[in-house]
Amino acid sequence: MLRLDPKKITLTLQEKQTFERMQKKAMSAILHATSLAYSGHPGGSLSSLDLLLVTYALSDISPENFSSANRDRVVVSHGHISPAVYTVLSQYGFFPEEEMILNFRKTGSKFAGHIEHTTKGIEWSTGNLGQGLSAACGMALAQKRQNINRKVFAFMGDGEQQKGQITEACRFAVKYKLNNLIAIIDVNRFQIGGATKEIMDQDLAGLYKALQWNVLEIKNGHDHEEIFSALQKAKQLENTEKPTLLLAHTFMGNTIPFMHDICDFHGKPCSDDEHNVALEHLNLPNRLDTLRSKKSQLPFKSSPPEKEEAFELKINRGEPIIYGTDVSTDNRSAYGAALADLGKLNNHTDLNTKLVGFSCDLEGSVKMSSFRKNSPEFFFEGGIQEHNTSVVAGALSKENFQVFFSTFGVFGVDEVYNQQRLNQFNETNLKTVCTHLGLSVGEDGPTHQNLDYIGLLKNIFDYKVFIPADPNQTDAMIRYVAGVYGNIFIGMGRAKTPIISNENNLPFFGKDYTFEPGKADVLRKGSDATIVSYGPLVVHALEAAEKLQTEEGLSVTVLNMGSVIPLDTQAIIQAAQKTKVIVSLEDHHVDTGVGSMIGNVLAQNKLAISFKPLGVDRFSSSGESSELYKDHGLDTDSVVKTLLDLRKSI
Amino acid sequence: MLRLDPKKITLTLQEKQTFERMQKKAMSAILHATSLAYSGHPGGSLSSLDLLLVTYALSDISPENFSSANRDRVVVSHGHISPAVYTVLSQYGFFPEEEMILNFRKTGSKFAGHIEHTTKGIEWSTGNLGQGLSAACGMALAQKRQNINRKVFAFMGDGEQQKGQITEACRFAVKYKLNNLIAIIDVNRFQIGGATKEIMDQDLAGLYKALQWNVLEIKNGHDHEEIFSALQKAKQLENTEKPTLLLAHTFMGNTIPFMHDICDFHGKPCSDDEHNVALEHLNLPNRLDTLRSKKSQLPFKSSPPEKEEAFELKINRGEPIIYGTDVSTDNRSAYGAALADLGKLNNHTDLNTKLVGFSCDLEGSVKMSSFRKNSPEFFFEGGIQEHNTSVVAGALSKENFQVFFSTFGVFGVDEVYNQQRLNQFNETNLKTVCTHLGLSVGEDGPTHQNLDYIGLLKNIFDYKVFIPADPNQTDAMIRYVAGVYGNIFIGMGRAKTPIISNENNLPFFGKDYTFEPGKADVLRKGSDATIVSYGPLVVHALEAAEKLQTEEGLSVTVLNMGSVIPLDTQAIIQAAQKTKVIVSLEDHHVDTGVGSMIGNVLAQNKLAISFKPLGVDRFSSSGESSELYKDHGLDTDSVVKTLLDLRKSI
Repeated sequence: MLRLDPKKITLTLQEKQTFERMQKKAMSAILHATSLAYSGHPGGSLSSLDLLLVTYALSDISPENFSSANRDRVVVSHGHISPAVYTVLSQYGFFPEEEMILNFRKTGSKFAGHIEHTTKGIEWSTGNLGQGLSAACGMALAQKRQNINRKVFAFMGDGEQQKGQITEACRFAVKYKLNNLIAIIDVNRFQIGGATKEIMDQDLAGLYKALQWNVLEIKNGHDHEEIFSALQKAKQLENTEKPTLLLAHTFMGNTIPFMHDICDFHGKPCSDDEHNVALEHLNLPNRLDTLRSKKSQLPFKSSPPEKEEAFELKINRGEPIIYGTDVSTDNRSAYGAALADLGKLNNHTDLNTKLVGFSCDLEGSVKMSSFRKNSPEFFFEGGIQEHNTSVVAGALSKENFQVFFSTFGVFGVDEVYNQQRLNQFNETNLKTVCTHLGLSVGEDGPTHQNLDYIGLLKNIFDYKVFIPADPNQTDAMIRYVAGVYGNIFIGMGRAKTPIISNENNLPFFGKDYTFEPGKADVLRKGSDATIVSYGPLVVHALEAAEKLQTEEGLSVTVLNMGSVIPLDTQAIIQAAQKTKVIVSLEDHHVDTGVGSMIGNVLAQNKLAISFKPLGVDRFSSSGESSELYKDHGLDTDSVVKTLLDLRKSI
Repeated sequence: MLRLDPKKITLTLQEKQTFERMQKKAMSAILHATSLAYSGHPGGSLSSLDLLLVTYALSDISPENFSSANRDRVVVSHGHISPAVYTVLSQYGFFPEEEMILNFRKTGSKFAGHIEHTTKGIEWSTGNLGQGLSAACGMALAQKRQNINRKVFAFMGDGEQQKGQITEACRFAVKYKLNNLIAIIDVNRFQIGGATKEIMDQDLAGLYKALQWNVLEIKNGHDHEEIFSALQKAKQLENTEKPTLLLAHTFMGNTIPFMHDICDFHGKPCSDDEHNVALEHLNLPNRLDTLRSKKSQLPFKSSPPEKEEAFELKINRGEPIIYGTDVSTDNRSAYGAALADLGKLNNHTDLNTKLVGFSCDLEGSVKMSSFRKNSPEFFFEGGIQEHNTSVVAGALSKENFQVFFSTFGVFGVDEVYNQQRLNQFNETNLKTVCTHLGLSVGEDGPTHQNLDYIGLLKNIFDYKVFIPADPNQTDAMIRYVAGVYGNIFIGMGRAKTPIISNENNLPFFGKDYTFEPGKADVLRKGSDATIVSYGPLVVHALEAAEKLQTEEGLSVTVLNMGSVIPLDTQAIIQAAQKTKVIVSLEDHHVDTGVGSMIGNVLAQNKLAISFKPLGVDRFSSSGESSELYKDHGLDTDSVVKTLLDLRKSI
């Protein structure tokens, strides 16, 4: 372990020798870990190793300061070089080396094939390429907004530079002057499929310069002195107000003769014979047999490893805004009003957690303008770059901020599904509030009609989905989510929505209402049938119930599922048992929304009742939303007809 | 309408005057269409208009040649400028102008808010930004491989240049020397949220040059002569073997005084008063009232508009490769062998449709190497650029090619879900064959474990999903899909899979087997319970059935759902009625896979039986796949236990 004085200019001979010893020890650990696991990525681990070693020596990151925000950060985007990261962390005291070597890629261990944030010392789980720079941008932004004078180092592979998300992150870093961000690309000239020059050639220095970054080159990315001097230079470029790139030229496999500059070891460990040759070359003890025997005796541990501890939110939720039954507005305006209020209450005092807003070129449509005006330093316009923005926002949300990310549903869910999935795996704290869901987006047509937000998000373990029925419920949900940790989606349409009233014609979601996840709202009680809905179609459900009462003398229960995930399964079971007829009604793909969730509740509870899900069953059209509802059988009359037909088959 | 001699150097006075007349007529149409619809994007429509007019005049695109591959192409990526595209197409005879104006943004009409490919003259449906250049790459590649000496013009907005996918497309176009591709960016300096300089500033000329494109500037993008001359120059750059960009500087709102250079009209039509002022300025008849009255009398038309006619596939499917019960291989190798065989059979004769392969840096892992070797000119390595590759492959698949796109499941589904959705909307013909699905990917860990491919893809209307149980079924499925048009996903794990045998110990999917969509395979017949599975866990289902027979004397039906979508609902209903007990078993999110589909079949058919879905209910771990199966209760013993428990509750 080595800690370099950040004011130094050159390395002493002793320091150079220490680095050489550390390098050899680390190479041995990388080889042992991958050979024992019979899998892994030794080639790139060895090429990135020296860059990591010197960076840690120059950084202020240790097991002791790792829970403090006041530390440097290292994000490793090419997460498959995990053995290199682990061995360097072990040399800096994060965990014993042998524990890592033995447990590498073992079920339930902390030492996964791709680095995971639950391992102490790891900032961000990566594996799917091209995302680390965005996460690093989020951390660099956090330092800026918390006045922390530290650095964020973002390690990347040269292959992954092909991912478009990286150019998005580059632009974001320049716009927000992230001069505390230093990116280091390990240019080993190979990716899994072969030479980067053959797979997808590009001029990285030229590209980053065109994107307005400072660019420095490290000719020999295994020369500790050169790496050191380049890092020191990069730090001094802070006054350019730009992020800096270090292009470090390295060799796959480092000094190991049969691996050196050979693509084959990108994703393949050594055979035992090769391992023996490599250790001989390093002139270090070969512990393969001993460790293999130890490994075979390790007990089985169930997945997944422990969860990370979240920071404590201190949010003043304020008082609800109540919209009277005569008010004509849309849910997104109610969202904007609630968010602006929360910004005012929390962002101008040092006592509370700050709220942050992100938009992707749609600030006006998603109603974030009032928030931006009262919290300008906590609002970020990410541009038409949803992939980058969702990850930046996710990373920032772990840094003692409560982050709201808003755009249209197709962009915040469909376009960035994988980024949201990886945010959840990273246990981020992002509130994604999407507007323009469903057929409500009308004339913008099928490319913009987001009919699958539930269908997609229910694939992400433990992700929550709330859909408000009117402006009052919107206000209640926004204030609720502002005070809780975790990733939550809140979705709404574009159009104005009548205020839902109770049977006394007062706002249903009025001053006595508190939003509770997993709890259905019983808007109307009846015994002849049940209509389950949420969002903009609740109005049709209520109209249908009234019509059935007036015209057919039927009393109909209307359940509002504002909390879609978790779903109130008890309410479904009770409604099924009591009314024997359920119609679900949603502005969503009919097979993948709440209807399909109800179907499963019924099936798994052996409830054979008359059930029909209503939803969208084909790509729709560009047209006025009320016409589209009718066209897809989601209008009031269609609900009435469906329910009467169902009752015939009880 | 004007057709310019492609050999001309300058425009005549008469031609200039004609362009001016066309421009004014088009401006009037844009204004009328958006004012009548009370919505739309007039600002950008007016800024792009002159570029479109001159491009069509210099191109060989007409209603007459539009069904021939031998034509120039125009892709418009910023699909919201639909009124401009429609009015230019109407001037070139594609449809009557008044029909367009009256039906713009009307339910069920061909004139949607964002352009759709079902409208004659439109090459590609767009709306979600940043995707058009990728589609244009696919078309340019098709021209190259069909030896068609034509051009593809890709129009884009300047705001959408922020999308990372565009840099991916740029690299692809350079790698494959698409010198027949001319991109034209309408630099009107605004996007919906404000000035591009404020939202996300960038140096477009510098960026495209760094990406190795030819770059030309059009100083005045409303000067027909300058546009003409730049287009002529761009065509001459063909010999550089590079794609060419025209950066055209324009004004939002064109010459209309109150719209000129004003961001506000990006996504907002004129008020009636503004419309009147604009038409007065143009000195053209104001037909707003007349047309409004006509529009109000149009009959309602249901969505969606008609489907496009697909090209006729001519594929020799060859003879199945049969793997004996003693063979030890994986499904992906069987895929590779089938694809290579199909390539040999079809790609070396002029009589058949050519097969094409795309990979994203994973050619070896997805077993496309044999295909590449026998069909080198029909294999494309897209690099770590899945967003671009999925759209390029989609666009190419409509051009008389049968296209296979292969990568890991998380990249081919999760990362590019929205691209696949938009491919389906574009009625492409893409076979996405993903490997490394599920927990089978083991040690690569949760970021790589694709547990949601069914859960995601079932949100895309009419998309098909097939999952083979063993190498024989893989061969049968690949040969089947090779002969049909449409988007189909075929998925498989990483590990070796035993050959499924029938009760006589012969390959179940042997020489008499033909794959049929929507048909379950009855692997074992029994009357006491049913296990439904697919893919790698079919083996556990069979083992469980055998164990239950031997140890408990129970006869168990085992259904293999190789065709996941469409699902064989009749087989489920019959099994439920006959055996009263169903356990589903899948290497997939338990709430969103086949189990949830079965739940819905039961609920909608009022079948109250003992049903339990087994699947994955949390992020897993990096570890050996057999350990992970056990850890998640998906091993043979867990299935036996679940089924015995269920039987107790009949």
